[in-house]
Amino acid sequence: MPQVSEKGRAMPPSPIRKLVPFADQAKERGVRVFHLNIGQPDIPTPDVALEALRNCRERVIEYTHSAGNLSLRRKLAGYYRGVGIDVTEKNILVTTGGSEAINFAFMSTLNPGDEVIIPEPFYANYYSFATICGVVIKTVTSFIEQGFALPPVAEIEKVITPRTRGIVIVNPNNPTGYLYSREELEQVAELVRKHDLFLYADEVYREFCYDGREHFSTMNLKGLEQNVILLDSVSKRYSECGLRVGMLVTRNEEVLATALKFGMSRLCSPAIGQLIAEASIDAPASYFKAVHDEYQERRDFLVKALNEMPGVVCPKPSGAFYAVVKLPVDDAERFARWLLEDFNYQGETVMVAPANGFYSTPGFGIDQVRVAYVLKISELKRAMEVLAKALECYPGRVL
Amino acid sequence: MPQVSEKGRAMPPSPIRKLVPFADQAKERGVRVFHLNIGQPDIPTPDVALEALRNCRERVIEYTHSAGNLSLRRKLAGYYRGVGIDVTEKNILVTTGGSEAINFAFMSTLNPGDEVIIPEPFYANYYSFATICGVVIKTVTSFIEQGFALPPVAEIEKVITPRTRGIVIVNPNNPTGYLYSREELEQVAELVRKHDLFLYADEVYREFCYDGREHFSTMNLKGLEQNVILLDSVSKRYSECGLRVGMLVTRNEEVLATALKFGMSRLCSPAIGQLIAEASIDAPASYFKAVHDEYQERRDFLVKALNEMPGVVCPKPSGAFYAVVKLPVDDAERFARWLLEDFNYQGETVMVAPANGFYSTPGFGIDQVRVAYVLKISELKRAMEVLAKALECYPGRVL
Repeated sequence: MPQVSEKGRAMPPSPIRKLVPFADQAKERGVRVFHLNIGQPDIPTPDVALEALRNCRERVIEYTHSAGNLSLRRKLAGYYRGVGIDVTEKNILVTTGGSEAINFAFMSTLNPGDEVIIPEPFYANYYSFATICGVVIKTVTSFIEQGFALPPVAEIEKVITPRTRGIVIVNPNNPTGYLYSREELEQVAELVRKHDLFLYADEVYREFCYDGREHFSTMNLKGLEQNVILLDSVSKRYSECGLRVGMLVTRNEEVLATALKFGMSRLCSPAIGQLIAEASIDAPASYFKAVHDEYQERRDFLVKALNEMPGVVCPKPSGAFYAVVKLPVDDAERFARWLLEDFNYQGETVMVAPANGFYSTPGFGIDQVRVAYVLKISELKRAMEVLAKALECYPGRVL
Repeated sequence: MPQVSEKGRAMPPSPIRKLVPFADQAKERGVRVFHLNIGQPDIPTPDVALEALRNCRERVIEYTHSAGNLSLRRKLAGYYRGVGIDVTEKNILVTTGGSEAINFAFMSTLNPGDEVIIPEPFYANYYSFATICGVVIKTVTSFIEQGFALPPVAEIEKVITPRTRGIVIVNPNNPTGYLYSREELEQVAELVRKHDLFLYADEVYREFCYDGREHFSTMNLKGLEQNVILLDSVSKRYSECGLRVGMLVTRNEEVLATALKFGMSRLCSPAIGQLIAEASIDAPASYFKAVHDEYQERRDFLVKALNEMPGVVCPKPSGAFYAVVKLPVDDAERFARWLLEDFNYQGETVMVAPANGFYSTPGFGIDQVRVAYVLKISELKRAMEVLAKALECYPGRVL
C-alpha cells in the first residue's frame, strides 16, 4: 500500500481544532458547549456586506483575476491609506484568507532549512505553514508574568543564525492579545535592518486595540520597504471568517510578483467572497465603534472573572480578542478534554484551546489555555461560572 | 535586500494567464478579444444555485468544518452514488477548488524528489503543484496524430523508476479533450497495481462526454481502493469557477486524514461557496442535457471550422470543452502574442493558449494551441473568421 508523505506525517494537528470530535460527542449527549477555543466571533457581519450578498445578480460565477478583482484591490488600497498605510492596488495580492497570505509569503521567500523567528506562544498555524515549506521555526519566549511583552531584542538576536531569513510579528497578538508598542517594533526593525531579514507582519486584529491605545503598523517602519510583508484578512475585521478573503501587501515588487505566481497556480480567490469583502469596506464607523466597545467590555469582564478564580492568572491584553490564561491544573490539554468528556455543570461545559500547541519549547504552556472572548457577556458570564465549577472538581487540580 | 525563494523563482508562469496583460492592452486600444484561452464557460450557473445565493440569510459568515460542511459532504456522496461511484461523506474532503485538491493530494503523498508520471500535453498547473512539493514530473507523450489517445502502457512503464510514486490521469482530458476508455484505464490500473502507485484521477469534466459515450471513473477500478485519489470540482460542472469549491475523494483513510491536516492549516473552504455548491447538486437533469448538447454543438462547429483552414489540424475530442490544435505557424506563443499586440480584423481578435506550456518535453507543442469552446456558437463563428484572417496574414506563417 502506498504511503503518505513525510510532511503529511509531520503536519501538526490544529491545537484549536483537534478536540472538536470530543465537543461533537458532548453535544450528542445533549451537553451545551461554550466555544472559547476558536476565534469565531458572534459579532454580525456588517449589513452592507450581507446586502451585497443578497443583491448579487451574477449569472455566471466566473474566475477572477489571480491577484484579486481590481475594484477590490483599489478599495483595499483606500482602506489602508485610511489607516495610515500608504500603498496602492499594485502592492496588494488578494488571497484565500489570511492563511493563504502566510503560505504564499513563506513559499515566496523561504527555502527548505531556512529559519524564521517568532515569539512564543504563537499562532499555531505558522508552524503548519513552516512544515509545508520545510522551514524551521525558532522561538523566543514571552512570559505570562510580563503580560507576554516582546522579549528583549538581545534574546531575539541570540537566536539568529546564518540560516535566519525572517521574523514574524503578530500584532495585536494571537494567542496572547498583547499589543506591541511602536518602541518594541522599532527594536525589531533594528534587527531586521542589521541582518537584512524579512519581517512578516500579521495585523489581522488591527481594529481591535483597547484602552484608547493606537495600532502602529510595521508598514510604517522606516527603511524596511523591501523587508516588510503584511499579512491581512477581512475575517476578523468584519466577522467574515467563512469568506476566505485575505491580503498579502508589500512594497517589495519581486516578492509580490513571486507570490502572484503561486496565486496563478490556484487560479483565483473566491469570487463571491471578494464581492462581499469589497462591500464591507463601506461599513460605517459606528459599526467598528460598537464592535470595539463590545469587545473591550467582554475583555474587562473575562479578565476580572478569571482572576477571581483561585489559582488562575490572566494578564489584561490590550488587543485582539484572546487571552492566554494560567490554570491550576496538572495538564491543560487533559483538563480541556476532561471538560468535554467527563464534565458538565447543569448540562453545560466549556471548550478551551490548550496552550501547549502554541509553544514550540517542550513543556511550555502545559498549564495554560487560550480563551477567545467571542461570546456575548451573558454567555461569557455563564461560561465563567461553569469553568469555575470545573476547576473546583477537576481531579488533576494543582494549587 | 532579502531574496525570493528558489521555488518561487522556479514556479512557471501560467500558460493560460501569462498573456493576459497583452489582452488587457488590446482591450484598452478598443479591440474586442474572443477568449478561447481559458476554461471559463459562458454557460449560466444553475438557477437553484443563484437562488440559494440570493436567499442566503446568514447573519455571521462563520468558519465551517475544515473538511467542509457535513450537509454538503452528504449531498456530494449522494451525487457520487448517482454517477455510480460508491462513497460516503467519510471519503470526501471539501477543498478550495480542484486546485487545492491537487495540492493536498500531492502534499499528502509525495516527498521531494519523488516522481509522478503524466501523459503530455497536460494541465499546466500540475507542474506548479509539483514545483511546490519539489516533485519531478515525468511525461509520456500523446500525439495529435492519434487524437491524443493514451500512449502504449509499455511506454509508460519505461518511465517508471524507484522514485515513481504515482500516475496522473485527467479524464476527460484538459487540454486535449480526449476521453479515456475503460480499456485504457484498465491498462493503467495494471501498472498501478504492479508498482503499487497512487493514481491521481482528475475527473472535473465527468459530465462533458459526447457522441453518446459514457464516462468510466477510476474510482471503479477493482483492487485500487487504497491507490486512487479522485480530484474533483464544481467549477465546470455547474459553471461555478469563481466559487472555489472542489473535492478530494478517496477510500484511503490515511491519505484523507493526512489531507485533512493540511485542510486544518487553512481553516476551511469558502462558506458561501459551499452553500451554493450544495444547492447546485439539485440542478435538474434538463440543465445538464441542455449544457451537454450546447457543448457538443460547439465542438462540432469548432472542429469543422478549424480543419477547413489551410494547414490547421484539429482532432475531434470526445470530452471536456478543449481541443489542442496544430497551426501553420513558426511559433504558437509568438502567434498568440501577435494576435493580441499587432493584429485585429475589423476591431476584433482572438486569444488562445500556446500549447508549449502544456508539454514538458522541450520543443514539443511549439506549433500548437489550446482552444476552449466556452463561447456561444455565434461568437465562436466570428472568432473562427478572425482566426482564419489572422493565419492568412501572420508573418510567421509556415505551410
